[in-house]
Amino acid sequence: MVSKVFFFVYFFCVSVSAFGQTAAATKSIKVNEHRIEDRIMELSKFGKDSTGRGYRVAFTKGDQEGRAWYMGLMKKAGLETSIDAAGNIIGKRKGKKSSLPPIVFGSHIDMVPDGGNYDGCVGSIGALEMIEVLNENNIITEHPLEVLIFSNEEGGTIGSNAIAGHLGSEALKLVSQSGLTMAEGIRAIGGNPDNLPSAIRKKGDIKAFLELHIEQGGILDKENIQIGVVEGIVGIEHWNVTIEGFANHAGTTPMNMRQDALLAAAKFIVTVNDVINRYPGKQVGTVGKLAVAPGAYNVIPGKVIAGLEIRDLSYDKIWQLFHDIEKKADSIAMATNTKFSFQYQANPAKPALTEKSIQDKIIASVKALGFSYKYMQSGAGHDSQEMALIAPVGMIFVPSVGGISHSPKEFTKTFDMANGANVLLNTILKLDKE
Amino acid sequence: MVSKVFFFVYFFCVSVSAFGQTAAATKSIKVNEHRIEDRIMELSKFGKDSTGRGYRVAFTKGDQEGRAWYMGLMKKAGLETSIDAAGNIIGKRKGKKSSLPPIVFGSHIDMVPDGGNYDGCVGSIGALEMIEVLNENNIITEHPLEVLIFSNEEGGTIGSNAIAGHLGSEALKLVSQSGLTMAEGIRAIGGNPDNLPSAIRKKGDIKAFLELHIEQGGILDKENIQIGVVEGIVGIEHWNVTIEGFANHAGTTPMNMRQDALLAAAKFIVTVNDVINRYPGKQVGTVGKLAVAPGAYNVIPGKVIAGLEIRDLSYDKIWQLFHDIEKKADSIAMATNTKFSFQYQANPAKPALTEKSIQDKIIASVKALGFSYKYMQSGAGHDSQEMALIAPVGMIFVPSVGGISHSPKEFTKTFDMANGANVLLNTILKLDKE
Repeated sequence: MVSKVFFFVYFFCVSVSAFGQTAAATKSIKVNEHRIEDRIMELSKFGKDSTGRGYRVAFTKGDQEGRAWYMGLMKKAGLETSIDAAGNIIGKRKGKKSSLPPIVFGSHIDMVPDGGNYDGCVGSIGALEMIEVLNENNIITEHPLEVLIFSNEEGGTIGSNAIAGHLGSEALKLVSQSGLTMAEGIRAIGGNPDNLPSAIRKKGDIKAFLELHIEQGGILDKENIQIGVVEGIVGIEHWNVTIEGFANHAGTTPMNMRQDALLAAAKFIVTVNDVINRYPGKQVGTVGKLAVAPGAYNVIPGKVIAGLEIRDLSYDKIWQLFHDIEKKADSIAMATNTKFSFQYQANPAKPALTEKSIQDKIIASVKALGFSYKYMQSGAGHDSQEMALIAPVGMIFVPSVGGISHSPKEFTKTFDMANGANVLLNTILKLDKE
Repeated sequence: MVSKVFFFVYFFCVSVSAFGQTAAATKSIKVNEHRIEDRIMELSKFGKDSTGRGYRVAFTKGDQEGRAWYMGLMKKAGLETSIDAAGNIIGKRKGKKSSLPPIVFGSHIDMVPDGGNYDGCVGSIGALEMIEVLNENNIITEHPLEVLIFSNEEGGTIGSNAIAGHLGSEALKLVSQSGLTMAEGIRAIGGNPDNLPSAIRKKGDIKAFLELHIEQGGILDKENIQIGVVEGIVGIEHWNVTIEGFANHAGTTPMNMRQDALLAAAKFIVTVNDVINRYPGKQVGTVGKLAVAPGAYNVIPGKVIAGLEIRDLSYDKIWQLFHDIEKKADSIAMATNTKFSFQYQANPAKPALTEKSIQDKIIASVKALGFSYKYMQSGAGHDSQEMALIAPVGMIFVPSVGGISHSPKEFTKTFDMANGANVLLNTILKLDKE
């Protein structure tokens, strides 16, 4: 009881302090935005390619150095630090009640080649900031806390796949961007691919998983909104679309006798865009790659393979859109005297919904802090998607300037990072009260 | 005078014999279709790649072997055989009047990789057949005759460029499909790139140049017409079209915030097709190649480079079409928030018209032989295009089954080859009469 009363009083102070000036005298419990900024900059120094571009790709030397640096900070902050069999970094902080399941939060520090300094890093540095602030304020939560830095997020959310219990032996054989197989890579960062089952967390093991992340899109920035409350992470489906025409001489084949696979592909790309735009909702559809054969000025393309991606929070809607596109491809095939076939690719990600009760706590925190917010879906995949299979999940977005991500131009302002971290802190404390 | 009377009588017989059965008793002067067919098959054996596909690419071992075989046949047929500085094979047959300029006819025996057995070969074997038939019938023409087999037609009409006097030193440095530079390749087939001026023919040096060739398109086959009388060889212009959007995350960037370079390219390709089809005439326009960057399912394409080609008999029309396309690209750029720029490529070929008086002689021959014909333009480039710069030129097309060319499926029926060769023979004899 004492602890509960203590906590209630404490939390009242937090809420008040969140309004800033009016609570100058109360115990302040806010993140240190300069520390966040400094650490983001420090982390950015690890992992460069020969041209100086960001290259903290999972399993590479830069990733290993970044992880070592991060674990050093964890230890300094008093966390009980370990690496699980999948290479995930775990930092534990005891709660008052060791029997309670931990509240877990974190993200990843690996990046795509030529990536930016905020994707994953804001959530990782933000997670560590929670511990610093609690330490500084001598707060011990009821629940144990756990900082979780996932291994190889960008290469297929490998670490969180392992935690959710479905990182298979086939996936371990795949060659990662680093050049190492997943198994070799996991070993290189201190994991043990032969003992993956030990990394699995069962349902109930974790009270909640929270991830702070940059939006990676331009909605918050464009609409000048401070916090995105993520309703779910979209499912992603990929198809290869093979369009067969007939390669022929571009000089001697009259326009009306052609079977131009690229013309058919062009009509298809326009149609994909039309279909995706015609339905209400936030779905996105992209033709991101295209291979044209034989590929010469003077030969009518005989074959095109296009890469089609559709994302939405609803699995059914993804397939409804696909079937509509597929039907329209029939008409294009007829009109262009070509043949379309669709090769379904392995499912990259199933839609994952965040927990309504956690969304509510995030919003309560946002309101207490006086921020603007909007409900959003995450168009990008995240470790939270895997974590949603085994635990209630919440996700907090902060603005990406210009919506740019996976690029050296990726940028999030210091106060936006701090805002997100303060929302994370408040949400953790609200969850801890339960 | 004697010779002229002789010829008149002789030619009367030719004309009669052309009607076949009714002239069984008269001296027959027709090509031997079996010999043509056999030689086409024999030539097809030279030049294969490791998988058995046709690979008599200029300057390669197969090309060298095919040329040696052909020159052997020339010599057997009594021609005075030589190789000029550009690697063109020349076979001379004396006429009655050595002061007259020669009537020249021929084509090429090199092929594109994985090419067919008829492109160039029909005209080359057909040219040799002229000599065989004249020999068999003990006919000596007034004019000297010359069989001309051009070097490296498929790699840029190199041999005919040299004859027309504009094979520059820069072109000699280019690497040909064989892996050799043009200079090295010319040397490999017995030419001398250091002495190219010696290969030049001046205006007036040649009475006429005639080329028998497969259509390489499907018009004659589709319309069931036996002979194409070529009015001209189209000009060809190439542009690279660079479309710049913004590469961004395909999951997090809403549809209305995209700058999708591939979507813009798709609209452009459809527009090119529309513009080309909307104008009356036989012009063709093709987007034959397309490079998409970065090229992943999950990244909105930021940059596309498309290869645009337009062909027509009229230089002005090509540019009129291009300017129309360019204007419409502006609207696409506006609508898709992308930027278009056009990089003009070196002019691959200027339009070349054949000689009206030679067209008339071809038609007179066609009529005498009882064949159907139509006026056509050649959508493909040919050595005749270069020869038109220095001599009156005539070109005879025979059907390509299904319009297929530059493919192992390329095929022309034996009797169609023979028909074309008979028209060539008659045309040569008519020219000789002048």
